[in-house]
Parts: sequence; structure tokens; C-alpha cells
Amino acid sequence: MDTRTQPIREILLTGTSDDIRAALVAEHPADIAKALKTLGAHDAWASLKLVPVEQQAEIFGYLDNDFRTLLATVMARGALAAIVMEMNADDRADLYKQLSEDQRKALMPGLAQAEREDIRRLASYEEDTAGAIMTSDYAALSPELSATRALTVLRREAPDKETIYRTYVIDSDRILLGSVRLQDLITAPAHAKVADIMETNTHAVRVDDDIENAVRKIAHYDVVALPVVDEAGRLVGIITHDDAFDVMQAEATDDFHRVGTVTGLEASVGSASIPMLYRARIVWLMVLVFGNIFSGAGIAHFEDTIAAHLALMFFLPILIASGGNAGSQSATLMVRALATGEIGMSDWGRVLGRELVVAILLGLSMACAIAVIGVVRGGPEIALVIALSMILIVIVGSLIGMLLPFILSRFNMDPATASTPLVTSIADATGVLIYFSIARTILEMP
Amino acid sequence: MDTRTQPIREILLTGTSDDIRAALVAEHPADIAKALKTLGAHDAWASLKLVPVEQQAEIFGYLDNDFRTLLATVMARGALAAIVMEMNADDRADLYKQLSEDQRKALMPGLAQAEREDIRRLASYEEDTAGAIMTSDYAALSPELSATRALTVLRREAPDKETIYRTYVIDSDRILLGSVRLQDLITAPAHAKVADIMETNTHAVRVDDDIENAVRKIAHYDVVALPVVDEAGRLVGIITHDDAFDVMQAEATDDFHRVGTVTGLEASVGSASIPMLYRARIVWLMVLVFGNIFSGAGIAHFEDTIAAHLALMFFLPILIASGGNAGSQSATLMVRALATGEIGMSDWGRVLGRELVVAILLGLSMACAIAVIGVVRGGPEIALVIALSMILIVIVGSLIGMLLPFILSRFNMDPATASTPLVTSIADATGVLIYFSIARTILEMP
Repeated sequence: MDTRTQPIREILLTGTSDDIRAALVAEHPADIAKALKTLGAHDAWASLKLVPVEQQAEIFGYLDNDFRTLLATVMARGALAAIVMEMNADDRADLYKQLSEDQRKALMPGLAQAEREDIRRLASYEEDTAGAIMTSDYAALSPELSATRALTVLRREAPDKETIYRTYVIDSDRILLGSVRLQDLITAPAHAKVADIMETNTHAVRVDDDIENAVRKIAHYDVVALPVVDEAGRLVGIITHDDAFDVMQAEATDDFHRVGTVTGLEASVGSASIPMLYRARIVWLMVLVFGNIFSGAGIAHFEDTIAAHLALMFFLPILIASGGNAGSQSATLMVRALATGEIGMSDWGRVLGRELVVAILLGLSMACAIAVIGVVRGGPEIALVIALSMILIVIVGSLIGMLLPFILSRFNMDPATASTPLVTSIADATGVLIYFSIARTILEMP
Repeated sequence: MDTRTQPIREILLTGTSDDIRAALVAEHPADIAKALKTLGAHDAWASLKLVPVEQQAEIFGYLDNDFRTLLATVMARGALAAIVMEMNADDRADLYKQLSEDQRKALMPGLAQAEREDIRRLASYEEDTAGAIMTSDYAALSPELSATRALTVLRREAPDKETIYRTYVIDSDRILLGSVRLQDLITAPAHAKVADIMETNTHAVRVDDDIENAVRKIAHYDVVALPVVDEAGRLVGIITHDDAFDVMQAEATDDFHRVGTVTGLEASVGSASIPMLYRARIVWLMVLVFGNIFSGAGIAHFEDTIAAHLALMFFLPILIASGGNAGSQSATLMVRALATGEIGMSDWGRVLGRELVVAILLGLSMACAIAVIGVVRGGPEIALVIALSMILIVIVGSLIGMLLPFILSRFNMDPATASTPLVTSIADATGVLIYFSIARTILEMP
């Protein structure tokens, strides 16, 4: 708990109504939201209902969707409807998506017709599409307006819009023509037309576009918001920079977890329940157990060679781990580069060539290091076996690690499924085969 | 290369001067920058010098710092100085930091006194502090101004500022009093004072604050910019949301690489040279080779037990990998949660308790699975050995993986140094000891 959350929490739990009201006005809604989340839903709502509904909605905007849903269960239906009317369109739709059928039925009659339709529309877009995080609270202008008139329109509409820093220019069919920065509107001559001030190279995403694509565009063009259009080019919503930021954080966490074979953990690790943590981990651990049976079978296959040269066992962990480690490095580099869009599927050939050169250099360096230990511990023959094995194992491990993310991506699977433990398991089994094959060939030569 | 980059690149390489000029005007500077980066420095500058300096500076703003530095080496010193004068203050300082002593000496006399001082000041802040990414191109207002007068000031200053969407209110000593949104200024009554419209709960970061802290605040408060103050509370700069976005992307990539034991890779993997890639990987691979000697030594220590029960070897990869895999999962969860600030150092006790419960459940589940294979392959005694070993190895592996990031963090090291391969190596060596100790105890009972 950080330094700002603790004092607010104290006041919410032990203060008088007046103390709480004062704190809720003085503190930033983001900090209040963070403190509320540390309370139970009942205590949180008891505090929240002391302030006017506009402020309740503002604080609601900073809560995560799980906690909002939890709060919704303890609030009177009228109170919930009042907040929902004041909420941003995108937050509102996210909340609606998480409510139970009964809760939805209780909520909807309390809303105005326009809000009901808006919620239904926004909630209808598929997860992980641009439509799912866009908001309908955008400001739009006609190209014929003068700068002065446009400012008057914006002045009137500002309170209901997520941002008026960038406004979208649309024709009478709502086709997106361009965008205009508030900055340029207020510095333009009073009679200049919006059409003359607007930027026409405004990039939009399609409503069914991948969410990651939309987020990357916001980062690429450094904009505060990105317009979303339908298949006909009509403006249907905007994605704001702060929502893009949150999505990017969540995607990075998800990829991070995935390469560590933690999957499907919806809540944060600080608040996830024990069953949630168990479920997020057990599947891959089991899969990997069975993956490692191949390594065991490999060893069993070479039992005679091992029995004859027990000294080989000393080097087994070093050799197979090195292949796994080199492979993990390659996979890590590829997974992240594919996720950030820094390299694309078509780059695999070029990347493969460089990977091969790097892997040969790494293999040679490590073979030199291990050969010294090999001579000391097992004599020159053993040293030769482990040096050759090391070179081959590092090269093969690196190539597995590099190619696996591309192959997964090719078959429309998340490249991050090429997790470090998966690459390690595959490289381990390959390493066992390489090592003992070379050992048998060299040590059992007649 | 994406679909937008290729056609621009074609024009830049094969078009006439007029074609190039037309393309540089029509396309978004972010897309032009991306296409320029695929050319050599000479070709890129040959295109870039066809457009006016204001536009050169705008495109420069979207290039990464490495490519800017490369371009600087092929430009005439007058041309570079002209662009630098037009660049944003923070980009300018970043470029300056990367120039050689000779290049700096050539550049500085071409700049105005104010720019020289600004560059020196911004370049003086330590890396990874808020000062290092802030810009001095912010707009500030006095609290006594009326809304109308404030808008006039902003209208005049807008072209030189990075953002006027949020303006900072300072007193005559430049002490930060609050901030005001452009949105609120244009909707306020004409004679309202800035002091009455401004928000006073504006959160700032200190100039020497950690950069990650600043980025987290921008995400937490959902703002377009965050003010930066010195030790006396005086406003010295702002950090904009787009720069925060880039920093967060870079930090996430860095952490991602670090858990895969790729360290210090400054360039992107698509453009890094072979020596850079080699250097980023070899150190950890070598460290881990020596780490795995412990596993080898453990196996050598139990050589008699192994020779007597060669069937044990079949299960060795499965058992030690499971400890490493469970540990990787725990480390992954902790590293990311610590990086996003979702859990703090003080949470370790609470997290440890839950980790222990989850680890026991995971260990029991995996013991059941492996015991079946144990009975089939080695008989009931072997099955008992491997089931007991599995439970203990998964628990110990999980705890190592969970605690290591906290321990590293405690000693001021990056928690992400608790990489998957490091955790795996430690868990491997521990697993060998646990497995063969249990095996010897049970199988060699008199």
C-alpha cells in the first residue's frame, strides 16, 4: 500500500461523515479509487454515497471493472442507474458486460433511451477489437463551420466529451474527413473554416481491428486519441490515450506471464485468490511434466552408455541447461519484438541468418569454457565429447527458441506461448539426444 | 516492414525531387520517419533536405535517438543547428547527449544563447530520473489572469509548446500552485480568474524522482502531462503522455529481456548488430554454465546410488524441471507485479503465505500424476520416492522463485535479474539434492 492510500483509507474507515466528505472532495479521484479498493464493497459504498452523483461517477471511472461490478451488487438500483448515466460511455459498457442478467434487467429501465442504446451498441463489439475499448463520447465538427463557431460548439459539448483536444471532422453521412486540434482552433483566424485548419492525414482504425493494432497506432502517431470507423468509413467512436496506455500495460503483463507459463490470470497477483493462482499455473506444469518424459526416455535409451561412463552424468545438467538457456534468450527476443511490432512475420529469414551466426559464436565460446572443466574432470576424450555437444546444443537450442514464436504465430497462436519453460523442455530433450549420441560415437569407437 | 512504410520508401529511393517533396508533405511525419529509418543516413538526409526546416524538425521528432545521431554525422553543421533550433526541448537534449565532443562543439555556436542553456540544463539530469525525459516546452499561467486573458497568452504561446491542453499555474517565484485544463478555460466565464478555475490537487514529480514513478503517475491520474518540480516546489518542466508511453514500452521490453537473461541490448532486435546480440547474451550463459556445475556435482556425489538404481535417471529431468518451472512461474508473477507497482516490498509476507498454499496444492497434484508413471516404470518404491520428491521440489522451487525477486530488490538490484534461467538453475541444483537424498534414504533402507 503506498503512502497516499493509507491516510485516505483511515479517514474512510474511521472518520465522521463530514471528514469523509471533505476527503473525497480534496483528494484526487484516482487516489480515492485506490483507497476504496482496499475496503469491502459495503464500506466503500457507505463512503461513496456521501458525495454527489457526478463525483461518484468520476471516482467510478478510476476503479477497475471488477471492483465496479462488486460495488454494483451492494448499491440500490436507483443509485446505480444514476451513476451509470453520468459515467463515460466506454466504462459504462464495460460495467454492463460484467453484470449478471438480473442486474442488467434491474439497471436498464432506470436509464434514458439514448443511454440504453449506446450501452447495447458498445457492449456488442467483440473483445480484443478496437470497438471494445472505444468510447462514443467524442466531439465531431462539420467542415463548413468557422473556427469561432466550432469553438462555441465545443464549449457547449465539452462537459460530456472525453476529450475535445482533438475533434473529428465528418460530413453529413458521418464519413471521417480529418481532425482538428483544439490548439489550432483557438490560434486560427476567427473566420477560418474548419476544413482549412483540419489535418487530412488522420489515421483511423476499423471497429473490428485488433486492439493491439489500435494501441500501436496511438503510440506511433503520438496522439491523444484515435478515431474508429466502420466498414463504410463512418466515425463510430474514439480510443483515448489513457485507455490505450492501460491496454498496453495489460498486454505487456499478459505476455510476460505467458512466457513464464502463467496463463489466464485475470486479476492482479496481489488480489488473485488461491484457486485462481492454482488454475493459472497447473495446466502448463502438467503439460511440461509430460514434455520432460521425452528427456527421461532419452536418458533411459542410453542407459548402457551412461553405466559405462558415469562421468558423463556430471556434465548432463550443464549441457542440457545451456541449450535451454540459449533457446530462452532467443525466444524472449522474438516474442517481445513480435509483440511490439518491431519485427514482422516476413522478417523471419533475415532474423534466422543472424541468429545462426550469433548461436555459433555463443556455442564456440561456451565450448571453450566447458572443455577446460572437461579435461580436468574426465580427460581429453570426455572434453572433446562435451565441447562438440555444447556447440551443437547451443545452436539447436537457439534456433528452436527463435523459430518457435514464428511458427506459433503462423498458426495464429500467441507467439508468447513459446514460453521459456516450453523452449527449455524441447531443448532439454534434444540436448539429451545430441549429448549421448556424440558420447556413444566417440567413447565407444572400436 | 509494414504496408505503409514500403510505398514511402520506394518514392524516397526512386522518385524525383518533386515526388519526394510531395510525399513528405502528404504523409504523416511518423510514417515518413519510419520509412527514412530503412534508408542509409546519406539517402535519408538527401530526401529530408528537400523540405523546409520546420518540417525536417517535425520528422526528426519521430525518429529514434540513434538514427538522429547517425543523421547528424552526415549533415552540414548549419543544417543541424537549424533543425535543433526547431526541435522540442527534450528531443534536442537527448540528441545532444549522444553527440561526440567534436559534434557538440560544432553545433553549439550555431544556436541562440537561450537554446544553448536549455540544452545544457536538460542534458545535465541523470538518466532514469524524471528530469531526463521532461521537456521545458510547457505553458504556464499566473493565477490572477482572467480566462480570456489566459486564452490570449496560450494562443500566442501554443506553437512553441508541446501541449497547452493542461497548463500549469505558478506564482511569481515559479512555485507550482495547480493546473488548468484548456477545456475548462474555454468553457469558463470570460472574467473568471485562473485561480478559480484551476485544480489544486495537481500531482507533480520531483526532478530527481525515478522515471518509472513518473510514468506510473501519468497512468494512475490519466493525465496528458505531469509537471516536474525542483526541491523548492518550483516548476522546471513537464513530462508528456507520449514520452511516458515510450518509456513504459522500453521498460517493459527491458524487464522482458532481463527475465530471459538478455541484458543491455540498447538497439531493437531487428536492427542490433551481431556483436551487440552476442554481448547481450554471452555473460549470463557463462554464469549459468557455472551455476549448473552445482547440479553436476550433486549428481556426481550420488553416483553410487545412481549406479545401483539406474531407473532413477529416467525421472531426473521431470523432477528437476518441475521445480524450475514452478519457480519460473512464481518469479514471473513477482517480477511483473513489482515492476508495475501492483505489490510493494512490504507485501512479501502476505504473498509468501499464499504462495506456500498454492505450491503445496501444485506439488500434490503433480505428485499424483507422476506417481502413476512411477509405479508403471519402477515399482511402488520408486513411485514413493518420486512422489515425495515432486512435492518437496515444487514447494522449494516456488518459494525460491517467489523470494528471489524480493531479495534482489531489497539489495537494490533489479528484481527482473531473478530471470527464469537463474531460478531454474538454482531450483535444478536443489532438486538434485532433494531427489537423490530421498532416494538414498528410502531405497537403501536396511
